[in-house]
Amino acid sequence: MTSSESATRLESDSMGEIPVPADRYWGAQTQRSLQNFKIGGEKMPPAMVKALGIQKLAAARTNMDLGLLDRELGAAICAAAEEVAAGKLLDHFPLVVWQTGSGTQSNMNANEVIAGRANEILTGNRGGKSPVHPNDHCNLGQSSNDSFPTAMSIAGLQQITGETLPALERLKTALIQKATAFEKIVKIGRTHLMDATPLTLGQEFSGYAKQIEYGIERIKGTLPRLGQLAQGGTAVGTGLNALEGFAEAFAREVAGITALPFTSAENKFEALAAHDAIVETSGALNVLAASLMKIAHDIRMLGSGPRCGLGELLLPANEPGSSIMPGKVNPTQAEAMTMVCAQVMGNHVAVTVAGSNGHFELNVFKPVLIYNLLQSAKLIGDACESFRSNCIDGLEANEERIATLMQQSLMLVTALNPHIGYDNAARVAKKAYTENTTLKEAAVALDLLTAADFDRLVRPEEMIAPKPRT
Amino acid sequence: MTSSESATRLESDSMGEIPVPADRYWGAQTQRSLQNFKIGGEKMPPAMVKALGIQKLAAARTNMDLGLLDRELGAAICAAAEEVAAGKLLDHFPLVVWQTGSGTQSNMNANEVIAGRANEILTGNRGGKSPVHPNDHCNLGQSSNDSFPTAMSIAGLQQITGETLPALERLKTALIQKATAFEKIVKIGRTHLMDATPLTLGQEFSGYAKQIEYGIERIKGTLPRLGQLAQGGTAVGTGLNALEGFAEAFAREVAGITALPFTSAENKFEALAAHDAIVETSGALNVLAASLMKIAHDIRMLGSGPRCGLGELLLPANEPGSSIMPGKVNPTQAEAMTMVCAQVMGNHVAVTVAGSNGHFELNVFKPVLIYNLLQSAKLIGDACESFRSNCIDGLEANEERIATLMQQSLMLVTALNPHIGYDNAARVAKKAYTENTTLKEAAVALDLLTAADFDRLVRPEEMIAPKPRT
Amino acid sequence: MTSSESATRLESDSMGEIPVPADRYWGAQTQRSLQNFKIGGEKMPPAMVKALGIQKLAAARTNMDLGLLDRELGAAICAAAEEVAAGKLLDHFPLVVWQTGSGTQSNMNANEVIAGRANEILTGNRGGKSPVHPNDHCNLGQSSNDSFPTAMSIAGLQQITGETLPALERLKTALIQKATAFEKIVKIGRTHLMDATPLTLGQEFSGYAKQIEYGIERIKGTLPRLGQLAQGGTAVGTGLNALEGFAEAFAREVAGITALPFTSAENKFEALAAHDAIVETSGALNVLAASLMKIAHDIRMLGSGPRCGLGELLLPANEPGSSIMPGKVNPTQAEAMTMVCAQVMGNHVAVTVAGSNGHFELNVFKPVLIYNLLQSAKLIGDACESFRSNCIDGLEANEERIATLMQQSLMLVTALNPHIGYDNAARVAKKAYTENTTLKEAAVALDLLTAADFDRLVRPEEMIAPKPRT
Amino acid sequence: MTSSESATRLESDSMGEIPVPADRYWGAQTQRSLQNFKIGGEKMPPAMVKALGIQKLAAARTNMDLGLLDRELGAAICAAAEEVAAGKLLDHFPLVVWQTGSGTQSNMNANEVIAGRANEILTGNRGGKSPVHPNDHCNLGQSSNDSFPTAMSIAGLQQITGETLPALERLKTALIQKATAFEKIVKIGRTHLMDATPLTLGQEFSGYAKQIEYGIERIKGTLPRLGQLAQGGTAVGTGLNALEGFAEAFAREVAGITALPFTSAENKFEALAAHDAIVETSGALNVLAASLMKIAHDIRMLGSGPRCGLGELLLPANEPGSSIMPGKVNPTQAEAMTMVCAQVMGNHVAVTVAGSNGHFELNVFKPVLIYNLLQSAKLIGDACESFRSNCIDGLEANEERIATLMQQSLMLVTALNPHIGYDNAARVAKKAYTENTTLKEAAVALDLLTAADFDRLVRPEEMIAPKPRT
Repeated sequence: MTSSESATRLESDSMGEIPVPADRYWGAQTQRSLQNFKIGGEKMPPAMVKALGIQKLAAARTNMDLGLLDRELGAAICAAAEEVAAGKLLDHFPLVVWQTGSGTQSNMNANEVIAGRANEILTGNRGGKSPVHPNDHCNLGQSSNDSFPTAMSIAGLQQITGETLPALERLKTALIQKATAFEKIVKIGRTHLMDATPLTLGQEFSGYAKQIEYGIERIKGTLPRLGQLAQGGTAVGTGLNALEGFAEAFAREVAGITALPFTSAENKFEALAAHDAIVETSGALNVLAASLMKIAHDIRMLGSGPRCGLGELLLPANEPGSSIMPGKVNPTQAEAMTMVCAQVMGNHVAVTVAGSNGHFELNVFKPVLIYNLLQSAKLIGDACESFRSNCIDGLEANEERIATLMQQSLMLVTALNPHIGYDNAARVAKKAYTENTTLKEAAVALDLLTAADFDRLVRPEEMIAPKPRT
Repeated sequence: MTSSESATRLESDSMGEIPVPADRYWGAQTQRSLQNFKIGGEKMPPAMVKALGIQKLAAARTNMDLGLLDRELGAAICAAAEEVAAGKLLDHFPLVVWQTGSGTQSNMNANEVIAGRANEILTGNRGGKSPVHPNDHCNLGQSSNDSFPTAMSIAGLQQITGETLPALERLKTALIQKATAFEKIVKIGRTHLMDATPLTLGQEFSGYAKQIEYGIERIKGTLPRLGQLAQGGTAVGTGLNALEGFAEAFAREVAGITALPFTSAENKFEALAAHDAIVETSGALNVLAASLMKIAHDIRMLGSGPRCGLGELLLPANEPGSSIMPGKVNPTQAEAMTMVCAQVMGNHVAVTVAGSNGHFELNVFKPVLIYNLLQSAKLIGDACESFRSNCIDGLEANEERIATLMQQSLMLVTALNPHIGYDNAARVAKKAYTENTTLKEAAVALDLLTAADFDRLVRPEEMIAPKPRT
Repeated sequence: MTSSESATRLESDSMGEIPVPADRYWGAQTQRSLQNFKIGGEKMPPAMVKALGIQKLAAARTNMDLGLLDRELGAAICAAAEEVAAGKLLDHFPLVVWQTGSGTQSNMNANEVIAGRANEILTGNRGGKSPVHPNDHCNLGQSSNDSFPTAMSIAGLQQITGETLPALERLKTALIQKATAFEKIVKIGRTHLMDATPLTLGQEFSGYAKQIEYGIERIKGTLPRLGQLAQGGTAVGTGLNALEGFAEAFAREVAGITALPFTSAENKFEALAAHDAIVETSGALNVLAASLMKIAHDIRMLGSGPRCGLGELLLPANEPGSSIMPGKVNPTQAEAMTMVCAQVMGNHVAVTVAGSNGHFELNVFKPVLIYNLLQSAKLIGDACESFRSNCIDGLEANEERIATLMQQSLMLVTALNPHIGYDNAARVAKKAYTENTTLKEAAVALDLLTAADFDRLVRPEEMIAPKPRT
Repeated sequence: MTSSESATRLESDSMGEIPVPADRYWGAQTQRSLQNFKIGGEKMPPAMVKALGIQKLAAARTNMDLGLLDRELGAAICAAAEEVAAGKLLDHFPLVVWQTGSGTQSNMNANEVIAGRANEILTGNRGGKSPVHPNDHCNLGQSSNDSFPTAMSIAGLQQITGETLPALERLKTALIQKATAFEKIVKIGRTHLMDATPLTLGQEFSGYAKQIEYGIERIKGTLPRLGQLAQGGTAVGTGLNALEGFAEAFAREVAGITALPFTSAENKFEALAAHDAIVETSGALNVLAASLMKIAHDIRMLGSGPRCGLGELLLPANEPGSSIMPGKVNPTQAEAMTMVCAQVMGNHVAVTVAGSNGHFELNVFKPVLIYNLLQSAKLIGDACESFRSNCIDGLEANEERIATLMQQSLMLVTALNPHIGYDNAARVAKKAYTENTTLKEAAVALDLLTAADFDRLVRPEEMIAPKPRT
């Protein structure tokens, strides 16, 4: 604490006066929350603080347009709100996630900081309630109950469209590039972790790319509902104390500020009392967590070794892998990714539990809902970016190893099914396995085929696609 | 066990001979599974068995069309498969969910039963592998690895479109009807479970209806991916041993049989190795679980009493409520619904964990995935139907109680904000609360308004919508 | 339906008369539930039905001892309850899990069946309420609110002590036996899936055995709380209408009947309103699910191949593995096990959500809680038994393969750390890897050691334990 | 960034040289991680950093005692490690949770910072590897694979015993105090949210207190396994490069430093490859989350109103509740608590998924495991403390309201069961309900009792305990 922080000024609310740090813009209600909720260290995420700035900015502009807010006060509010939206006043948002479940205290934090900063702009004196009042002006025609979920929608959609989806697109592209680069490399397939019929390494990667492609589709499919803004519902969804048309004008304002397709929620009762759209979007991220867990785990297993594993892929060596085993290189990017996936799956349960516990006109698990959604969205985005640039882009195929393994496989026998039947083919495979011979040797020994027939029929490079129609 | 069941015949597979019950159609591989997997009592769901019937029927028809399957054998296979699809042979599918993770044993169960029944049709002798062979004919051009997930898609889509969505539509309609019936009933709103500003009971129900409407949209949005059939990928996704065009022709066949929009999966590697579409659809059901938990819990709280609760709603009394408290009536339909919701949330985690654990070319958690998806889909559908017909349809408003509570509320003071400011309005509410008076008495005593002004400004019936623009 | 089932008799409750099937013992309340809750197909688990038999038996005996129940009626009730406890009347318990959340309907089902059977014993006429009345006699001094949770405790503890724990003990023993059998087999270790320093295969299995040992400890640690019986709390925990001492005498009775250490719950309010003990025991099963997922997955990866995987273990071949790939053998027991683990993890979330939603004097998620606990306990038990007898017992080490892999490993270099330092050791490993040589060749080429020193210092069989103190 | 931070020095590892900020103690491997893992913002928790300080301190002391570490170097290492343990060097631990899954990078961060600081102590020059080397000295006889999980155990046990359990004990005491204070207040009970038979408010709180008491027991039951230290297992559990006896001596050292009952893990293979103890302890916190969700939700429902809810409890008013509704006071502490509970339930799933995914000799989800366990432990502790001091301690009963509600209840009729039978009692309740009369009026009108009998038999204050034996 610097000495300036020990200086205080008095701020007040309906409960009376309370000292706040003199160098902070916040007021009485923020200060009370700070004192009453000493829980954990997870602050309201910066993306949410910025979204509250956007929400207050759009509200002030709309109120001015509707003639409800004095132009001079409104201009100061807008200037202050823009600073919040730009992340310049993050130090003035000290509250944690674990506060009132409506996010009222963070909404008031925004109202107080914006009023406090606007008053400074207008009068030179920081804080206070005059000429700009946190409730009567900054919160004009609003309630925490519609403002906070509006900011949730803004923060969520911005995070996802701004970071998560672009990172996923880049990962998809990188996987497609590998699918193309590897399209001629025929390798052993594995089902049940056991040797199976061949495919190309490119085909394997095409499956990964498709998973991400669908994952992107899934997320995009949820955004029209996530982008519905609760604003205009005020306290319980009815719109009491808001003006007709405010909700729609506000939504247009936000869409303009963010260049994102926000709309006014079709039903404000649903928008306050439930957060199904958050559960839904979290669910789309949960599918991606399942997909990425699979992909990252495959890649590390394919890269296992270098001498005692599968060894089909060579992963970039980004750092020493072990504090005791010299020269060890580990699939660390895959590990970070799979840890992120576990977290996103857990977060989704937190979101589901929170989302199911709305009561009457208000769900009061709002902060924990947006905290988890934003964490999941950020982690998925960042982890995809890191995984792509530090692992996928530098992946190489160990073609020699791949070829060696493929030649040994007993499951090439499957190509004989149409010719000698399943039961005979099984006899060939068993004999070769038991006697540790090649399939050809076994097939010939069993008098099922000539060696020449075997060579003609069992060709891995022709086992990677359906039979052409003749 | 009847005496006929103790009689056996011998069946064989690549591991040798094994006795099976003489009166059952299944063969050696089904029998082995029965003996090797004595785990739990959850059989492969009937919807999955029927879907395997459809899958085998469509495959046989396609194979005949492609000239790959003898017409006479094919006809017998089709006849047998239709019996499976119609649910007539459920007693011949004894296997549990907890078997091989590819569902191979249930696929072979279908192949064996269909071959066994087809052979009976053709020869009068039940079972065996001739003239119809379970692998070479019933499984022709197929693998468990594409057949079983194909049946998963069929079963899932049928369950959802045939039962879940219609039940949800009926519930939505019932809620809309209540929203209309209750549209004039002004009541106290509640946020944080505390008294808030008024709304109509109809508005409250409109929020519930909207939740279900969106829930239906969410499910529908997942179906294009759920309806992608893996068939044609065969063992590892390459389509080895299938004919070019088989996949697409097969999908058309299934679409024709079911009258549902099935398509061939765009990428067969993804379709075998991952089950993201199952995770996704389960996620949509999970959102509904959150929605329905909220709705059912609200309704039972609003109906709480009869004398010591909120008492705003009267729920139908369908049965005595207590074995010890005479005359007690409980919100049992809401309880069944909320239990279903808890189950669906849990199932979703099982699905997510299972979906994330695919390895290489095959996810081997297929049976547990479809078991949970089908259970969730059925439970949501059935519970909605039961809740609607036994609870929502018969709901009545206790208008006298609603009016009494609404008149007492201190939060009507909110209407004064635009006139006397937030801080003064807060003083009025506090004074009325502390002194146990009406708001009007407090406002007048504080000299903030005349009684006439109060009556003009505080009118609950005008507090349920935004202010009209003048 | 047989013709006898279409015959009905009239039964009545406080809501009036209702026809029930003439050949069933149940009465009006069971019949109403059957009609009002057509949800899913999951019936109240047989273990729960039997437990309700035990609960009614113990209550009747206690009531007779206390002089509250006529001896003749009591004897008939006891006879009927014993039939229920023995599972002889399962066909008379048709209700599903998804009913009233207190389990009242299943408690009444038990009361009605026992009364109906007792009346038959006494009068020759099935059903009815005289001379034995379902409420006044069978439910004497009881409420569903204490009877049903009492049966939950009984069913849970019986399932776990009777099946789950013995199966776990046998699995632990089997793993210890393998640890001993494999104690001399030195193999490559793997961390991050990458080659690491050696250990014995026996050491690897000793870790699995320890996991199960602790898992057993964990479950046992929860049982003292699971075994606390709610009986005697009656409707809300106060014990209204029960006699002082009834609760304790009843618990002794149940302990006697079951030979298990049941006690009377220390606080009956907690015992009715919360089910933390169920959540706790489910949590212990959840830890086992995590342990078993790890063990089963390790074993299938170690057994992967036969030619293109790790191939260190040979798993028993219990059945053909593929419907398309002849001769394929898959780790199906491991797959069944891992599917069970996914289910248990999901069930645990259902249990947690249900357990957290008690309200006031009663948690009304009782049926879904016990359904999931019993399913998890049964699945873990059965899957351990199947996995043990069909997989672990028959596991063999592929010693040749193990030795080959171990010799190749670069991580043997770790033994040189104390002699040449970490950085030099890293240079050796890197050189050997890059140039595809042995470690010895690289070390000598780098002039860090003589070949003789290398041979003396790098001995895998001495790398499997701490250095002895000299 | 200050200008000093832009200055760099070169550090090196087995991959070569890399610039690091001149004013930081860390070295090459920390720097590489910082650059390679730009994922999220969640840093390795301070409790973990401090625990790594303790781990390095104990290792250095043990190594000196065993004569393996030069005394002068050892002293400098100890001095530096103590600074880390005291939290003085948190700014030198910049790494995020989402790194290598073994925590190697954070272990190396500790090794590098301690070496860098020790070198500064010894030579005046910050950083570097001489005379103190991060691997050869700070990590002497250790591996990340045993050091990091050791620090996990230390951090977890310290957090739980130092903060979580004391907060739970205080909450339990506060609830017991309320149970005592409220022991004479007879109130309506509620089951299924519906009016039921009476109990005292004190009895209701005794149930809550018992839930917390058992929750404490549950956590304590897990600690013997959580406190088992992996140290001494080194790379794969064998103890390679450690000295016999090191593990045990180290554990004694840690026990001494922390005054907590740490022991050396019984099986080091289990201790590295699995983290069942973390899953178990997280599970105990999950039970508490279920308990606290119930308790907090009950309390806010009992306090609902002030005029249109149940209104039986008066919660402390700590802050204004609404930005739009003046005078509103909300149960914000209960809301923070229930949000924490949702988070802990989600975290538990993340922990379970992570715990189930160990492979071979190492679970590589270590950072995400400890991140979630520590967050859950801290949140439960802090939330209990806040809930207790800001809500429970100041709770008051609204005795007038409680009495009014209780007198109205129809469920007092239950007291008549033993006298007029369940069916007659039900008739009384129904008549009173339908005709809106008192129970007494209905009973007399039905000629079942005299008014005097009714008054004698229906006495709420005698309905709160079992009948005394006569």
